[in-house]
Amino acid sequence: MFREEIKVLDCTVRDGGLINNHYFEDDFVRNVYKAVAASGVDYMEIGYRCSENIMSRDEFGKWKFCKEDDVRRAIDGVESNTKLSVMVDIGRVEKDDILPCKDSVIDMIRVATYVKDTDKAIDLANEAFDKGYETTINIMAISRALDNELDEALAQIEEETKVLAVYIVDSFGGLYSENVQYLAGKYKKFLKTKEVGIHGHNNQQLAYANTIQGIIEGCNYLDATIYGIGRAAGNCPLELLLGFLKNPKFNLRPILDVISKDFLPMREKIEWGYLIPYAITAMFNEHPRAAMALRKTDKKDEFLEFYESMSAINID
Amino acid sequence: MFREEIKVLDCTVRDGGLINNHYFEDDFVRNVYKAVAASGVDYMEIGYRCSENIMSRDEFGKWKFCKEDDVRRAIDGVESNTKLSVMVDIGRVEKDDILPCKDSVIDMIRVATYVKDTDKAIDLANEAFDKGYETTINIMAISRALDNELDEALAQIEEETKVLAVYIVDSFGGLYSENVQYLAGKYKKFLKTKEVGIHGHNNQQLAYANTIQGIIEGCNYLDATIYGIGRAAGNCPLELLLGFLKNPKFNLRPILDVISKDFLPMREKIEWGYLIPYAITAMFNEHPRAAMALRKTDKKDEFLEFYESMSAINID
Repeated sequence: MFREEIKVLDCTVRDGGLINNHYFEDDFVRNVYKAVAASGVDYMEIGYRCSENIMSRDEFGKWKFCKEDDVRRAIDGVESNTKLSVMVDIGRVEKDDILPCKDSVIDMIRVATYVKDTDKAIDLANEAFDKGYETTINIMAISRALDNELDEALAQIEEETKVLAVYIVDSFGGLYSENVQYLAGKYKKFLKTKEVGIHGHNNQQLAYANTIQGIIEGCNYLDATIYGIGRAAGNCPLELLLGFLKNPKFNLRPILDVISKDFLPMREKIEWGYLIPYAITAMFNEHPRAAMALRKTDKKDEFLEFYESMSAINID
Repeated sequence: MFREEIKVLDCTVRDGGLINNHYFEDDFVRNVYKAVAASGVDYMEIGYRCSENIMSRDEFGKWKFCKEDDVRRAIDGVESNTKLSVMVDIGRVEKDDILPCKDSVIDMIRVATYVKDTDKAIDLANEAFDKGYETTINIMAISRALDNELDEALAQIEEETKVLAVYIVDSFGGLYSENVQYLAGKYKKFLKTKEVGIHGHNNQQLAYANTIQGIIEGCNYLDATIYGIGRAAGNCPLELLLGFLKNPKFNLRPILDVISKDFLPMREKIEWGYLIPYAITAMFNEHPRAAMALRKTDKKDEFLEFYESMSAINID
């Protein structure tokens, strides 16, 4: 599949940070940045930009805050055409945390939101846009969005912002290809002047397949992470996505190499990927929260009992 | 997705046997059979039926041969409506190995073939049919089949056999959804009196997604294995497939339970699932053979070097 408009965004450090409270070493982040840049990937999201007045440095590592100095130190001296992105959560960032783009190493700010917070997302995206950043709005938990509310949100984003793209974010890993088809069609109907993006989760081994489905439906902003690292079952594996896309600018080799050198050891330290409890939460279209909690107990492999507990929640 | 015509076939022991030379203990096979039967799955394929004159009992375990006594011992006393299947490979079975169905515990014989061996497959399928078995023909390595040869094979199978279904077998895990769409459409065009089946491999994390795509395209015979066990990256995970299918006859619970009890320990002993070398062979539309060999060496995690070696093969 070759389509010139396609942009790939690596969110290895940002989504991966959700499983280690953003405590990646500088060397790891630097190696990721080197590999992503060498592979020709368009964007790398290096973490969240949260306010230190709201979230504590005692509880979270530096990639939760992405202070300019920390980012610069990690990427210093690496030759790269890859743009840098940070994600902002509504209510966790203050406007002062967003420097004018000309003073920042960051190129793009992505606003994560639920449908209900669309007004706030628009406000934040416009603040970032006015300061000179490229922007996107990423609508999380999309498999739970009510149709009429989503319609209204998309119409409003189209009308009131200059974001480059609006994302379908399958936070629960609950979407099937037909849902992607439906949602991408809806997004494209409302977003006449913006691109559609897709961010999958792999709870049911569908993150990559749903990304391909998104491409077929015209999504041009594609999220992926190296070796699929990310919350719970993780994300669309970047190595598979680059194997699929035929754009000559992409080179798979640096990604394969960094998997061997950095991601196999990392996987020994922190857990992500296809595990039955994540498949179960996705089948119930639930946040993987309960499965993540289960994995920290000595019942982590008692799948039937976990299924019954999820089933009970969904009947009561 | 509910469609009454859908038949699910569990090939855990058969495809799983490819990674341990078919040396499963009777208890394991019995636990699989119990779980599959309790889950309401239509068929369980318990192994290959090979001739002992051709393949040696010194090299392969009993599930390579599926002698009647061995099968009966493993399943004795388990209450079940699940039919039993064995797979036969062309050139590895003699007609005498196929008892009349009325004397056998086996209900279905599936003939695995390459396109080029279609004549032999038809001959073998008709032999089994005439002895009273349900039959299918499973066309392997379909991602390498030449279009004109496949057309001819399908026309011939339609004309000359009474098989219930003809399978799309993605031996290399190389198919994308668009290929499944294309192939299923072709199969349905030629096979007016037969069902279409799909057997995926997970080298690119697409076995389940391709099975769903197959369902959308009208495939009614669906192969899966518990926890995705099977050669190389394995197969479509039965637990995910049952989570997707809404036919009320299926019950996911026994499958989840046997995964906890039997498959997590098994996975410690033998390796299957998503591993980068299998993704690489699939990207090149190659048999996973080279990746399987690599995994037995101390270079098993040197992905870039392996990619370069595959790349060289494909240029030379």
